[in-house]
Amino acid sequence: MQVGKIGEERLLRLIQRVVRGRGHLLVGIGDDGLVLKDGRTVLTTDAYAQGVHFDLSYLSYYDVGRRCACAALSDLVAMGAEPVVMLVALALPRRTSSRAVQELYQGLEQVCAELNCEIGGGDIIAFDQLVLGLSALGKTRRPLLRSGAEPGDLVYVTGYTGLAETGRLLLVHKLSIRFKACGGELAIERHRHPLPRLQVLQRVRRGISALIDTSDGLGSDVRHLSQLSGVRVVIQAEKIPVHPVTRELCQVLDIDINKFVLSSGEDYELLFTSKRRLGSTVAGVPVNCIGWVEKGAGVEIENQGRRSKLRIRGYDHLK
Amino acid sequence: MQVGKIGEERLLRLIQRVVRGRGHLLVGIGDDGLVLKDGRTVLTTDAYAQGVHFDLSYLSYYDVGRRCACAALSDLVAMGAEPVVMLVALALPRRTSSRAVQELYQGLEQVCAELNCEIGGGDIIAFDQLVLGLSALGKTRRPLLRSGAEPGDLVYVTGYTGLAETGRLLLVHKLSIRFKACGGELAIERHRHPLPRLQVLQRVRRGISALIDTSDGLGSDVRHLSQLSGVRVVIQAEKIPVHPVTRELCQVLDIDINKFVLSSGEDYELLFTSKRRLGSTVAGVPVNCIGWVEKGAGVEIENQGRRSKLRIRGYDHLK
Repeated sequence: MQVGKIGEERLLRLIQRVVRGRGHLLVGIGDDGLVLKDGRTVLTTDAYAQGVHFDLSYLSYYDVGRRCACAALSDLVAMGAEPVVMLVALALPRRTSSRAVQELYQGLEQVCAELNCEIGGGDIIAFDQLVLGLSALGKTRRPLLRSGAEPGDLVYVTGYTGLAETGRLLLVHKLSIRFKACGGELAIERHRHPLPRLQVLQRVRRGISALIDTSDGLGSDVRHLSQLSGVRVVIQAEKIPVHPVTRELCQVLDIDINKFVLSSGEDYELLFTSKRRLGSTVAGVPVNCIGWVEKGAGVEIENQGRRSKLRIRGYDHLK
Repeated sequence: MQVGKIGEERLLRLIQRVVRGRGHLLVGIGDDGLVLKDGRTVLTTDAYAQGVHFDLSYLSYYDVGRRCACAALSDLVAMGAEPVVMLVALALPRRTSSRAVQELYQGLEQVCAELNCEIGGGDIIAFDQLVLGLSALGKTRRPLLRSGAEPGDLVYVTGYTGLAETGRLLLVHKLSIRFKACGGELAIERHRHPLPRLQVLQRVRRGISALIDTSDGLGSDVRHLSQLSGVRVVIQAEKIPVHPVTRELCQVLDIDINKFVLSSGEDYELLFTSKRRLGSTVAGVPVNCIGWVEKGAGVEIENQGRRSKLRIRGYDHLK
């Protein structure tokens, strides 16, 4: 059957039947990254393609570099690791200017600089479209996994959910000037120049039981935590941190805001569970408690006192 | 200027101006892989694209997996490291069958199994063409670099130079049956199912001063050793190990065999320098002394007692 029909999850299970373990890994396929058996070394890899993950019609090469580097290093942060080195495999058209390639690397380098990470080389090939493969290695004293959530934990998310997608839509619909007064610039900045939440992680990591970054959409990412931890997660809809600019944009474009907030991806915020009560701001970043963990399975949304099962799924990269 | 015009080496220098070191690496851009400051951890990444690195018209998905995994892990072996884990970033068309993806992974897995390496996950995205980004981590007690060659060293190469390219041409020109008797099967096998020379490395590594794998073509790879070690390398043309099937194919296709042998890539053999005299076979693989290292610069070819500067360059991935 075609992979576009079976989707990501089933394809992953088919691949897992082929791949053999050899005792080198503490954590393998299924989390944001893998962990070597030393329990300290975290590795991650991701592919980003023109027209799929970024659009050069309204992003510069520098922006593309920043977005892709953020996504790559956010996977390390989502494992509780500090980034050390990033490798770049780059496929690009022969007609690309060397200036554009330098700008792309300036974007990658900027994110690395913010996180004290180092670009350690890679590979460049000629191809008809721009594709980046970014791999990164990080170090941690204790990996934070998707599978550690326990009944009684609280569920937290950093930043504003759906803000990056808001920024993307403002760019696509050329609405940036109209929304400038109500936070449009912040949204566009989160889309063009996101940064992984390493500083938040460093301050709250002691109490974290399970961690993931919000890359596929809040609904999908909460589901990952629930499934891998074997628990039920209850999300209070009114507690999800939505920025006014997102509310206004959804009104103007006639988008259901509840669906939008649960399904918008690429925020690269931290979504985590903890027994601790945390303040509303950590390292200058909003941190909001949006629900709790119970015995059971699945994800439920509590809206105006009524609970319902979460039906919205996040982005499937293949379907 | 367009990257297709300035070529790989100049583009790399432009990129190096943008990238900053942060003390995490012992060896950075310029070798087959990078080495963390622990001196033991080696990392490498490469991209492989349909139509550029492999051709599905005469290779199966399984073959593609084997070839790409060999190329990735050969870079670790070329740093003197034992492969530990490989990560797979895969871009593939939605119409690809799940069976084809499983076969691709079977090819990757087969090479990993031979080298006691483990596939540790990765990323899959939908794209209009098949592109693989393979990254790998290996461990070594002492990294073997391109820069260690010294005057007085001998130059060795394993296997048969140009054999993989011979196999590729036999497939492209549909000559496999005609050349079956004189080694065509061996050549095709080296193209479809190459394996990194880890076992040879394990037996000769003590005496190695500089090491690279032959992926860009012997001429180009010798030049890398010469440039990075700051020495002159003299290659004796008649000592280069050429298999009879390669001689015969070059005759039939009217190809200059000397150029062919110096410029054919993707053999994934070991090219190394050592002060030691080695036997002609190590771990069942031919090991031939093809020249020596002198004070000076550049690469010279000695042919029937006459020396000339090497003019043939290997493959530039961008030009």
